[in-house]
Amino acid sequence: MHTPGGAAAAPKQIATLCRNHSRPFLLSLLLPTPCTGVRTEEDEAGIKGKAASLSGNGTPVSHNTGGDPQHSIKDKRGKLPFCAMGVSSVIHPKNPHVSTAHFNYRYFEIEEADGNKEWWFGGGSNLSPTYLNEEDAVHFHKTLKEACDKHDLKLYPKYKKWCDDYFYIKHRGERRGIGGIFFDDMDSPSKEEVFQFVKSCAKAVVPCYMPIVKKHCHDPFTPEEKLWQQLRRGWYVEFNLVYDRGTKFGLLTGSKIESVLASLPLTARWEYMHNPPENSREAEILEVLRNPKDWVH
Amino acid sequence: MHTPGGAAAAPKQIATLCRNHSRPFLLSLLLPTPCTGVRTEEDEAGIKGKAASLSGNGTPVSHNTGGDPQHSIKDKRGKLPFCAMGVSSVIHPKNPHVSTAHFNYRYFEIEEADGNKEWWFGGGSNLSPTYLNEEDAVHFHKTLKEACDKHDLKLYPKYKKWCDDYFYIKHRGERRGIGGIFFDDMDSPSKEEVFQFVKSCAKAVVPCYMPIVKKHCHDPFTPEEKLWQQLRRGWYVEFNLVYDRGTKFGLLTGSKIESVLASLPLTARWEYMHNPPENSREAEILEVLRNPKDWVH
Repeated sequence: MHTPGGAAAAPKQIATLCRNHSRPFLLSLLLPTPCTGVRTEEDEAGIKGKAASLSGNGTPVSHNTGGDPQHSIKDKRGKLPFCAMGVSSVIHPKNPHVSTAHFNYRYFEIEEADGNKEWWFGGGSNLSPTYLNEEDAVHFHKTLKEACDKHDLKLYPKYKKWCDDYFYIKHRGERRGIGGIFFDDMDSPSKEEVFQFVKSCAKAVVPCYMPIVKKHCHDPFTPEEKLWQQLRRGWYVEFNLVYDRGTKFGLLTGSKIESVLASLPLTARWEYMHNPPENSREAEILEVLRNPKDWVH
Repeated sequence: MHTPGGAAAAPKQIATLCRNHSRPFLLSLLLPTPCTGVRTEEDEAGIKGKAASLSGNGTPVSHNTGGDPQHSIKDKRGKLPFCAMGVSSVIHPKNPHVSTAHFNYRYFEIEEADGNKEWWFGGGSNLSPTYLNEEDAVHFHKTLKEACDKHDLKLYPKYKKWCDDYFYIKHRGERRGIGGIFFDDMDSPSKEEVFQFVKSCAKAVVPCYMPIVKKHCHDPFTPEEKLWQQLRRGWYVEFNLVYDRGTKFGLLTGSKIESVLASLPLTARWEYMHNPPENSREAEILEVLRNPKDWVH
């Protein structure tokens, strides 16, 4: 738990704002992370996720307070005391046949100028495979849909589309991955109901992802497949640095930079005008990134 | 020469605006590039700088027109017909003892709402070594200073400071490199005089950089030195994607994305909390990136 140096305004007030919610929210999301048995690129360079960790299992958890939430929070909410807390994880496996996975669930509280308190949840889970495996894509989305459907049948379709829209790398006309769910500013029907929904999503992370890891972690791969993974990681870096609201929020609030950028892969690559041949497996995933599919109905 | 798909407004008008200047400007800057004898990372993956090239020697040259220059041009200049042309080069050598070098010289013209035409030049040259070599730093800056001093003794100190300020990676508190010169919005004393100054700077690129390449291109290097180069390239990527005005201009105007991002290195690396030991050569360059030095007086 850290308070960024750049944060301003009313620490006592913020402490009161957040005291009642941070502990149960954070603890309830400190689920077993899907790292067991996954050899990630970070293993080579030492474990990345040490700082800002409350969990002892490598899951980065943060709790930020300040006076100027800026771009990550709706503009209308302006310069006001706020608190933000969340749990976030990105796994970039070594093996190009094991998909990159990302999840983040977060809670915000803000005090309006008139003393009213607003709160909302945000977050999501998404998959960025190097190569398309339709069975894996269906499994990932189906598991997320089941978690959403327990609460409201409208949530999965709405948040699946939001995810496809959010993770759009505009300058490439491609998405960062094959989606999942994404939502923000969720403040109804009630705090308790939204909290239960967020818990269901967070609990779905392991059953969404671990079967994919177990299925592919011993798949052999060629140097060409590794190269394609590295190029895809270059676009992942582009999305996170150019578009991602969470990253911009971290850079603007003066949060610990190593934690903000911990989502970047260990290595990435850029090549000028790299166009995979037609009908290749590389072209297959690009097609899905350009035109998102409905994986479950 | 290309006109980006996203460009709007008055092609005929723009053609008239730029016709008189593009040819002499671009041709005068098509100097021999400092690539001869440099084995760059791009050699491994094929030469990057093909598109948007008029020069036939791999130097990327662009000539953009449109109706909304946005952030790369002063806000007050708003949505107006404009033309922009420039020559730009980044060299990311394989050998960590050969510094990365970047130069860009550009010309803008814009037509105000009242029909008045404004013009200005911008650009600069800068060096981003993996390891500090003081003799090289002095040589690079001294050669640039001599080019500037021929025109006005105030230019080098002013543009050296602007370079240190511009290439600042705010979230790290470090600069992208050890500087050089940077300037923008240069529209006085006269177009001819500014043009002569820009030509002097462009002609200094080869004598600034080639002696450094020749001196170090056969230096042996260790895997640890290569790793440090890759980490520094990660920060180079961060600067270009998060802060660089030219990159933002390219992303916003819908320019050819492969050309806009051609400045990124072939490969880059990120490690969580990588802190070089005190008194190491890695710590030495970080110190200079945190506290820029005056290399020549």
